[in-house]
Amino acid sequence: MSDYRMRPVGHVESPLTDRSTAPRQPDEGAPDAWLVFEDRFAPALQGLAPGQDMLLFTWLDRADRDTLAVHPRGDADRPLAGVFATRAPDRPNPIGLHDVHILAVAGTRVHVRNLEALDGTPILDLKPVLTRDR
Amino acid sequence: MSDYRMRPVGHVESPLTDRSTAPRQPDEGAPDAWLVFEDRFAPALQGLAPGQDMLLFTWLDRADRDTLAVHPRGDADRPLAGVFATRAPDRPNPIGLHDVHILAVAGTRVHVRNLEALDGTPILDLKPVLTRDR
Repeated sequence: MSDYRMRPVGHVESPLTDRSTAPRQPDEGAPDAWLVFEDRFAPALQGLAPGQDMLLFTWLDRADRDTLAVHPRGDADRPLAGVFATRAPDRPNPIGLHDVHILAVAGTRVHVRNLEALDGTPILDLKPVLTRDR
Repeated sequence: MSDYRMRPVGHVESPLTDRSTAPRQPDEGAPDAWLVFEDRFAPALQGLAPGQDMLLFTWLDRADRDTLAVHPRGDADRPLAGVFATRAPDRPNPIGLHDVHILAVAGTRVHVRNLEALDGTPILDLKPVLTRDR
């Protein structure tokens, strides 16, 4: 009945290519990046504009889906925590959630500030930060 | 290479059963609900406790995945907007994002406040609201 397969709608274009050196959070030196949507999703982008704050959902395709507990931030001195109590990328459904600020929209390309996702990361969804009238 | 299939880790147990009458946002009368995780994910829950604010990711299995533009909040008087500029449930990858506050943890069942997801909705992920030390 339900189809649980994700259909990527685009990908991230970023100078970040190495997971081991990538910042863990956007305020830890993440660069600006482009969200590159497939042309057929152009109608879904209608209404996006510079200055908007959005939530970007990605698929962390390099994550290990069998990990259930981790040392937070990879620090072996910290006690093991369940992945649902952390933001670790390794988890059963490795959905990445990123706060992004739109700098520019050019056709189906959206330029955003400070994104910690790696180059080539598949994009699943984009939603506005919630306000009362949306 | 990449597996894009979601593996639900549990489901929502809620008095809400009808999409047409469900609140659209948690502050519009959403009831408390239980997050019921499968037993094998117990290690992933370690560290969860009452009082924590979390982000719950669900799969909106009753959504229409071919919808690319909508009238916001179903109001035909409002101009069409791309689904990525709205929180409409109908979208290519209908991931639900819900702010939840943990009221209680009982084994692999987690009681949360004000959840607008329907009974039986599959759970994909749970992450802490971001703070500096996580």
